[in-house]
Amino acid sequence: MREIVGELVPPNRVLLTPGPSCMDPRVYKALGAPLVGHLDPWFMGMMGEVQELLRQVFQTGNRMTYPISASGSGGIEASVLNLLEEGDACIVCSNGMFSERMAVIAERATPNVIRVTAPLGKPVDPEDVRKAGRGKKIKFVGLAHGETSTAVVQKLGDFRKVADELGALLVVDAVATLAGLRLDVDREQIDICFSGTQKALSAPPGMAPITVNTRVEDAVRARTKPVQSWYFDFVPVMNYWGKERTYHHTPPIPLIYGLREALRLVLEETLEARWERHAQNQAALIAGLEAMGLEMFVANPADRLVTVTGVKIPAGIEDHRLRQQLLDEFNIEIAGGIGPTKGQIWRIGLMGYSSQKTNVLLVLAALEKALLDQGHRVAAGAGVGAAIRTYQQHTQPAVAGARK
Amino acid sequence: MREIVGELVPPNRVLLTPGPSCMDPRVYKALGAPLVGHLDPWFMGMMGEVQELLRQVFQTGNRMTYPISASGSGGIEASVLNLLEEGDACIVCSNGMFSERMAVIAERATPNVIRVTAPLGKPVDPEDVRKAGRGKKIKFVGLAHGETSTAVVQKLGDFRKVADELGALLVVDAVATLAGLRLDVDREQIDICFSGTQKALSAPPGMAPITVNTRVEDAVRARTKPVQSWYFDFVPVMNYWGKERTYHHTPPIPLIYGLREALRLVLEETLEARWERHAQNQAALIAGLEAMGLEMFVANPADRLVTVTGVKIPAGIEDHRLRQQLLDEFNIEIAGGIGPTKGQIWRIGLMGYSSQKTNVLLVLAALEKALLDQGHRVAAGAGVGAAIRTYQQHTQPAVAGARK
Repeated sequence: MREIVGELVPPNRVLLTPGPSCMDPRVYKALGAPLVGHLDPWFMGMMGEVQELLRQVFQTGNRMTYPISASGSGGIEASVLNLLEEGDACIVCSNGMFSERMAVIAERATPNVIRVTAPLGKPVDPEDVRKAGRGKKIKFVGLAHGETSTAVVQKLGDFRKVADELGALLVVDAVATLAGLRLDVDREQIDICFSGTQKALSAPPGMAPITVNTRVEDAVRARTKPVQSWYFDFVPVMNYWGKERTYHHTPPIPLIYGLREALRLVLEETLEARWERHAQNQAALIAGLEAMGLEMFVANPADRLVTVTGVKIPAGIEDHRLRQQLLDEFNIEIAGGIGPTKGQIWRIGLMGYSSQKTNVLLVLAALEKALLDQGHRVAAGAGVGAAIRTYQQHTQPAVAGARK
Repeated sequence: MREIVGELVPPNRVLLTPGPSCMDPRVYKALGAPLVGHLDPWFMGMMGEVQELLRQVFQTGNRMTYPISASGSGGIEASVLNLLEEGDACIVCSNGMFSERMAVIAERATPNVIRVTAPLGKPVDPEDVRKAGRGKKIKFVGLAHGETSTAVVQKLGDFRKVADELGALLVVDAVATLAGLRLDVDREQIDICFSGTQKALSAPPGMAPITVNTRVEDAVRARTKPVQSWYFDFVPVMNYWGKERTYHHTPPIPLIYGLREALRLVLEETLEARWERHAQNQAALIAGLEAMGLEMFVANPADRLVTVTGVKIPAGIEDHRLRQQLLDEFNIEIAGGIGPTKGQIWRIGLMGYSSQKTNVLLVLAALEKALLDQGHRVAAGAGVGAAIRTYQQHTQPAVAGARK
C-alpha cells in the first residue's frame, strides 16, 4: 500500500472573504448530529422545518422553497436552465464576474442572451434594460443583488417594473446578500430568488437555497421539452421537497443540519437586527480603512455592498505577499480581486458570523502591520482608532447569534 | 416573528439501507473541523491529498480524479452529459431503477439511447449489448456495477471487450460498490467510473467521487459544443481540481473533510480486508434470513450485490408496518423496495461502517420480533443462531475501521 495521508488538522482561520464565512459553534455542533436516512420519517418532517425557516428568511410564502444540493452557482444554473428553451431570449445585467456567470450559463441553453453592462464598480441602470428589451420577447431579466467581484450592490428599484413592461420574469441572485441586507422576495415580487449557504447565512458551503413563485411553476410546466439537466430540473426535485417527498436524489444531510441551525440563528437574532449589525460593522471597517489612507473601489457609498468591501491596493504593495502574511501571521483570510478586479483590489467580507466587532478591529490592526512591513506609511493605530469611534454610538452585542 | 423551530435532535439510527450508511466517529469529528476558505493554500494542498486517496481507492492513476459537488446521481449526469452531443448514440444496460436513471438522463441529451435490459433481479448479458450495438456508432456503453433497486451485481466481465468492439467508451456507475467489493478501474480499463460518498465509503452524503481517463479527456475536448451544464462540465471543474486550482465553484468543504477521513479509514483497513468484511457479513445475514424462512430476491448467489441484500416480503406481512416498527422499537432503518420492486422486497444494506457483526445480529433479532408481532412463525433464535455459526470460521475484528 502507498503512503496514507496524516490526520486532518486545518488551520483555525478568521474568514473575512466573500465566503465561506465563519460558522457559529452551534452550526458546527449541528454538522455532527447523528446521520439519518433521507427517507426516514423524522428527516422528512425536518425538511419541512428547513423549508419554513427558509421562507421566513426569504420573506416569502412560496410553496416551492428549498435548498438545492449544489453550490450557489448551482442556483444560477437551476434558475436559468429551468426557464430557458432553445431560442428564448433573456436579459442579464452583467456588472462583474458573478452576474456575468449567469449570462455564460444562459448561453449554453440559448444563443439569445442580451447583456446589459455597467462600468466596473457600478450597478446596472434599469433604464438600460428597458431600452435593450424594447420590442423583444424576453423570458427573464436576471441580476446579481450583490456582485462580490466588485463589491457592488444592485438595488432592485425599478427592475420589477421594467421586467413587467417586457413581460419578463425577474431572477435575482442573492448569493451574497440574503440575511446580510434587506431583501423581501414577496414584497419585491421576485419570481426566482436564490442564495448560497456559506455567505451571510453562515451555514456550511454546499447548498443553494432557492424560492420560486407560481408564475415560474407555470412557466416550467409549459415547457415543450424537459430541462436537459435532470439534477437541476425543478419538477422532480419539488416532488421530493414537496408534499409527496418522492425520492429524487440523496441530499447532503449534514449540510441540511447545519443550514437548519444557521437559519434558527438568523431568526433568533431577527432579520432587522442582522441587517443593522452588517451595516454597522462595515461602516466601522470603512472608517478604519479610510483613516489608514486606503481608498474604496466603489466610489459611491450608496453602491457599496454591505457584506463585501472592495479596497484599492495601494501602489507599491505586493498583493499576494500581503495576503499570505495575513494568513501566516494572523490566521486571517481576506480575498484578492477576481476576474476583472484581479490584482487591483482586496475584498474584505464581513458576512454572517464573521461580521463582528472583534474581526473588524483585528483585520484593521493586522493590515496596519502588513502594510508597515512593506514600507507603506500608516499613522499608528489610525484604522483601529477610527473604527472604535464609529462604534461609540452603537450598542451592538459582543457576538452575533443567539444572544439578545 | 413567527415561531422558530426547536433544537435539532435526530434519532440515533442504525442505518441498514442502501445508503446513507453509518459513519465512523472519526468521520463525524472531521465534519466539525475548522472551516477554511476554498482558495486557502492549505485547502488547496489538502485537495491534492483527497485526490490521491481517491486514486488509491479507485485503483487508478488517472489525473482527473475528484469528488463532484453533487449526489451520486450528479455523477451519472456529469458522465453522460460530458460524453453526449445531440444525435450521439449510447447503450445503457438497464436492469433496475438506478441503471435506468442513466438512460433517462441520457435521453435529455440525445434521442438515440439504446436500452439493453434484463429480467428484474438479473444482470445484463454482455452478448445482448454486442448484438444491440452491432453496426452502429456508439459513444459509450453504461452500466451500474451495483443495482441497488434489485440488489444485483453487474459483473464487468466482457463489457470492456464488447465496448472495444463497438468503438465505445465504458461508463461504470460504482455508487453502491466502490470500497465494498473488488473494483479496479485501471485493470478493468473503465473510462469513466463514479461513486457516491454515502455508501460503502461511509462518508457523508453529498459528493460523487469520479475518475476519468485521458480517452475521455480527449473526447470532451473534441466536442463541437460545450456541455449544456456549466456546473457538471468536466473542463472548468478540472481546472479547479487540476494543477491550476482555478476557482470554479465553492465546494462543500465540511463534506470534503469527512470524505478525506473516510478514505483514510478505507486504506488503513486495506481494500482487500474491507471487501472480505463485506462478504462475510452478508454471508452471515443471508444465512440468518434463510434460517428464518425468508427468501432472497436474487435467486442466483453469484448475482447478489454484496453491499445490499434483497429479501422477499413474506405473504401476509405488512411492509410499512414492519419497517416502522424497526424504526420505532429498535432505531433500525432498512429499506423497502423502490421502483419496480416497491412493496415486494426489503433491501438490507451492510455498507462501510454499517457492515458489522453487531448490526447483522441486531437486525436479525429485531426482524424476528417484528415478524412474530405480525403473526409470522419463526423458529426461536433461528436467524441469529445461523449467523453466529457462519462467523465461527472467521476472526473478523469487532468494529470496522482503523483497528487492525
